[in-house]
Amino acid sequence: MIDYRSDNTGRAAPEILEALVRANAGTALGYGADEWTARLQDRFSEVFETRVRVSPVATGTAANALSLAAIAPSCGLVFCSEAAHINTSEANAAGFFGGGLKLVSVAGSHARIGVEALRDTLAGFPPGALHRGQPAAVSLTQASDLGAVYPLAEIRAIAEIAKARGLKLHMDGARFANALARLGCSPAEMSWRSGVDILSFGATKNGGALCDAIVVFAPELADGLAVQLRRAGQVWSKMRFASAQLAAYVADGLWLRLAQASNAAATRIAAGIAGLPGLRLVAPVEANELFLETSSAVMDGLEQDGFQFYRRSPTLARFVCRFDVTESEADALVAALKRHCAAPARAAE
Amino acid sequence: MIDYRSDNTGRAAPEILEALVRANAGTALGYGADEWTARLQDRFSEVFETRVRVSPVATGTAANALSLAAIAPSCGLVFCSEAAHINTSEANAAGFFGGGLKLVSVAGSHARIGVEALRDTLAGFPPGALHRGQPAAVSLTQASDLGAVYPLAEIRAIAEIAKARGLKLHMDGARFANALARLGCSPAEMSWRSGVDILSFGATKNGGALCDAIVVFAPELADGLAVQLRRAGQVWSKMRFASAQLAAYVADGLWLRLAQASNAAATRIAAGIAGLPGLRLVAPVEANELFLETSSAVMDGLEQDGFQFYRRSPTLARFVCRFDVTESEADALVAALKRHCAAPARAAE
Amino acid sequence: MIDYRSDNTGRAAPEILEALVRANAGTALGYGADEWTARLQDRFSEVFETRVRVSPVATGTAANALSLAAIAPSCGLVFCSEAAHINTSEANAAGFFGGGLKLVSVAGSHARIGVEALRDTLAGFPPGALHRGQPAAVSLTQASDLGAVYPLAEIRAIAEIAKARGLKLHMDGARFANALARLGCSPAEMSWRSGVDILSFGATKNGGALCDAIVVFAPELADGLAVQLRRAGQVWSKMRFASAQLAAYVADGLWLRLAQASNAAATRIAAGIAGLPGLRLVAPVEANELFLETSSAVMDGLEQDGFQFYRRSPTLARFVCRFDVTESEADALVAALKRHCAAPARAAE
Amino acid sequence: MIDYRSDNTGRAAPEILEALVRANAGTALGYGADEWTARLQDRFSEVFETRVRVSPVATGTAANALSLAAIAPSCGLVFCSEAAHINTSEANAAGFFGGGLKLVSVAGSHARIGVEALRDTLAGFPPGALHRGQPAAVSLTQASDLGAVYPLAEIRAIAEIAKARGLKLHMDGARFANALARLGCSPAEMSWRSGVDILSFGATKNGGALCDAIVVFAPELADGLAVQLRRAGQVWSKMRFASAQLAAYVADGLWLRLAQASNAAATRIAAGIAGLPGLRLVAPVEANELFLETSSAVMDGLEQDGFQFYRRSPTLARFVCRFDVTESEADALVAALKRHCAAPARAAE
Repeated sequence: MIDYRSDNTGRAAPEILEALVRANAGTALGYGADEWTARLQDRFSEVFETRVRVSPVATGTAANALSLAAIAPSCGLVFCSEAAHINTSEANAAGFFGGGLKLVSVAGSHARIGVEALRDTLAGFPPGALHRGQPAAVSLTQASDLGAVYPLAEIRAIAEIAKARGLKLHMDGARFANALARLGCSPAEMSWRSGVDILSFGATKNGGALCDAIVVFAPELADGLAVQLRRAGQVWSKMRFASAQLAAYVADGLWLRLAQASNAAATRIAAGIAGLPGLRLVAPVEANELFLETSSAVMDGLEQDGFQFYRRSPTLARFVCRFDVTESEADALVAALKRHCAAPARAAE
Repeated sequence: MIDYRSDNTGRAAPEILEALVRANAGTALGYGADEWTARLQDRFSEVFETRVRVSPVATGTAANALSLAAIAPSCGLVFCSEAAHINTSEANAAGFFGGGLKLVSVAGSHARIGVEALRDTLAGFPPGALHRGQPAAVSLTQASDLGAVYPLAEIRAIAEIAKARGLKLHMDGARFANALARLGCSPAEMSWRSGVDILSFGATKNGGALCDAIVVFAPELADGLAVQLRRAGQVWSKMRFASAQLAAYVADGLWLRLAQASNAAATRIAAGIAGLPGLRLVAPVEANELFLETSSAVMDGLEQDGFQFYRRSPTLARFVCRFDVTESEADALVAALKRHCAAPARAAE
Repeated sequence: MIDYRSDNTGRAAPEILEALVRANAGTALGYGADEWTARLQDRFSEVFETRVRVSPVATGTAANALSLAAIAPSCGLVFCSEAAHINTSEANAAGFFGGGLKLVSVAGSHARIGVEALRDTLAGFPPGALHRGQPAAVSLTQASDLGAVYPLAEIRAIAEIAKARGLKLHMDGARFANALARLGCSPAEMSWRSGVDILSFGATKNGGALCDAIVVFAPELADGLAVQLRRAGQVWSKMRFASAQLAAYVADGLWLRLAQASNAAATRIAAGIAGLPGLRLVAPVEANELFLETSSAVMDGLEQDGFQFYRRSPTLARFVCRFDVTESEADALVAALKRHCAAPARAAE
Repeated sequence: MIDYRSDNTGRAAPEILEALVRANAGTALGYGADEWTARLQDRFSEVFETRVRVSPVATGTAANALSLAAIAPSCGLVFCSEAAHINTSEANAAGFFGGGLKLVSVAGSHARIGVEALRDTLAGFPPGALHRGQPAAVSLTQASDLGAVYPLAEIRAIAEIAKARGLKLHMDGARFANALARLGCSPAEMSWRSGVDILSFGATKNGGALCDAIVVFAPELADGLAVQLRRAGQVWSKMRFASAQLAAYVADGLWLRLAQASNAAATRIAAGIAGLPGLRLVAPVEANELFLETSSAVMDGLEQDGFQFYRRSPTLARFVCRFDVTESEADALVAALKRHCAAPARAAE
């Protein structure tokens, strides 16, 4: 069995669990008033080259919903891709934590918001229209839910449009490290220097274990968020065990090495299957995910070979590379795809 | 320095972190569809002698607020002690997750609900009064927020009153194990056999690390709660790391041994200071907490000696015993209290 | 000036205000415990040929949002037309009152839900998917937000699909009377006999003054709704003044006469402009609204003539007929449109 | 039958309904963009001697809950009397509209907040405590729910304490006119000049029909509130019919004459029963309500005589004077009370 179902089916990086275990010494004040959490503030501020407030949370859903609630009032509208995780997969969490805030889809390619599409959509919500929800924020998913990555110029163009209307900019960085590894830029460039106000900082999908984080770049948001987190049941009393994980995650470039590994595996597979008949990548492979349009017969064949992956539809398969997918596992998938695509097409399904 | 500030300032039991580390093998489906979480259902069902649904959550606040939201509609009233953690220390979480549900205090001794007081309070909310919130549930804290424990007969009497009005019964068991160790009864007796419908099952304060749990005894609540948990950002994608902690917590009686240790330390201290002038325990010491009425001078003296604890008011100090407080640490506190209480009273404060 | 801006810019029918004034005699219990409100229950039960619970509310937004909150949990999904008033014009009210419930658009013609489109959309939300909101209800707008009317067979087909998935059916009847007058069927046939569980019963747009209503056909919803209404600030203490209006509205067929009048005016205009070059009705005129695609030049001309209407876009104008639009006012609009459409096209805008 | 059950069982003042009927001429833009509503802004700004924003709403519950939601975040605490209507009689509306905001009772006499008690209570909520809800506002009920009136000096003292902690001040003025008539001061003095930021302006209990209002003195709150009102279903599309009522209510001193009349009736009754054995007023009669401690036998006797009133408990009766209670009706109650109190006490109850 080779598991391409998700990056959250994978193991945690051992360094992260070792740090968690090391934190189990002595006593420490609860609810984030400990030294690990204090050092985490410093560490992330270095990583992002500006003073940030970083708050560990249990899940990406919590990071997203609480971030959006922090930047949009309950009558607010948040503009995002139709395919955004916040819109499709978080069971109304944004609406719930946001007291009714509403997501509005914006068109674009490969699960990204299009710059012109955002401009057009916003034009349909002129200021002062009390009958509608009030435009409040834009949320970008980097990398996108189809494995594509916004170039910096696009983030900046989107930020500019947002700011011109007084909207805040959220980034869902469940795969922030994968996008960063792809672009080769600095964390600062991909976030606040490009206009991001608040970031859902993912770790779990990239070798983390039990926490993600919210990183706040707009200082005026930080105190209000702190109370919201407490009320949301997202402030561990033994916070040191969460902060230690996140500190280890960004220590010595671990997070980037992990992301480079899963990205490289995806790229290797994409290269290996280029030009195969009966296969089509529905989005560029820019992070650690491949979305393949192919036949059910091919999917059946892969499953019989022992590959695990998700069928998004009868003709769309998703493969996600974990940080610890090996080259031989990647090559095995390529070989299997070649074999099944070469097979004579069976009777119509 | 000897730390009596809280049981959440303490370490995790090594067995729990070892189990977490052991879970880091192979791949596993996300969001609780893994084997660790499946086995946890079986394990807790054995522990409670009935089929339960157990859902790991990040914090006790999440466990409480989501439990209450599961049993009370948003126009509901939940009856609890004035001193209950849900009422004093969770930043409106119950009201938030419950869409506006409201807590109503009920009098009683030592941060417990009194049986007669509950009856009287409920009489003030006759059925059919649409102008008020609607009585929906009772929440007991076991052990209480002053370290006292409800005997089984009281839980049953409260449950009977609640059920007669169609109310559900929640137990905030942040210190469930401490109460259990005190009463020497079975987990079943202290919960569903006494009428509890849903339980906030605490582990963090008793040697846990990063999770508590909700245990559902009323099966009709379980499916709805599952969606609420997802939406609340309380369902880890790598759930196995949480489930493994909880499984280790209840394995081989670990949880009870930990609770017995912290209870014993508290009892030892209470016995040691019995009869000391200038000291008064404001509640019986039935779990791992001591609430001492004494002078600021005594508190100052203790702090100078290196004892850490909370001043709840100028004349009320709280001492909490962790599972790993040693006998000599307990004896040191007794000795210091004896020393300071024997000191000639200083000038009036 | 002839006002085609909206049916809510119009007067109230004098009979309704007279009834309100007549209710100002003697004393009466508050919050709906009065005789006017009791009689209203009987009257609406006759009108709908079944025992209903009718609750006057201040606005259609309140009727819609509270109806949806009564049939969908806060993690629920409500399927509606993209153009539905609940989706475009009520400032997140459904999400707010529903604690985060989410609207999902379903394709269809003329701001209606398509039967096949609903089936297809629902197929994308298979049961048991906890990551998404949970399908809970379908909301139809009758007449639609483009002035079209669902035939009974379509309502029934939609209800059948909904019920097969366990979903409730809401009807936004802001223009219920207009649709009823069009179809010539009974109120029962257009509502509960076709599967509607709860109805936003509009009066304001059709000659009412200060109230609409919620009509509940599913008795199990009624008691819960009563508390929600109270909490929503929608239960007048002097309810008799609201109930008297609604009773007068349905007395002696007044509501149908008013709707027939506004429908007839719209039909007269539509007939008068049939075939005019440079004009296109974007939806069939089946109630009291006309949506005309035409040039800005034509719109400018009409405004200079003193006609008031809404420009939905540079090429789309909306005209709404009030119950008291006269035939000569209708003919004046026809004549003006003929005049402007016949004019030689001016230079490009 | 003479009805002392409530002031909301009473008629509307004819002037108010006449104004409503007069507004039924011509067409007018919806949702408050009409001339009546514009003039209402001017009129109330004159009445309050400062530029205010006045928003008609359907009920006092809506006025209170939306006012509180406008000044307190969802993690906020609002300090009020235990007996405040918002706490006892509005079915969790404040918590609901406020997304979980919580009411905290403050002791005091006659359903008022005590100045010292407020200071003491606030001291228990030191700044920066994230575990608790965050102090956000104080709510005063003027006249109080026991018919007492805050003198200006007390309002100012409370405002001063509130402002020193950065809290906003709300006044529940369901009986604002009665308190005003009692104090003989200006509306400005009893509101913004004494520190009130936002006012629930009651009309219904004092001769109004179908609306109360929110009056905003703190301009920064007004725009946000406007969207909240729309979303709350509290913005009538035919707003002119509401605005006309409120304009008539304050025209030519009508509101004060109505309040003087009901206050005078209450005062007359209080004077008439002074010193009667077996009767005790539990609060000073400073507005239009009397709360009488007496025996069940006396209450039974009054009911047999045809008096209607509420039994708050077996020994507490509430009598409310409507604006149109006549002197002879007041004297009849006095006479009946004298008769029943003189009667030989029957067997113990």
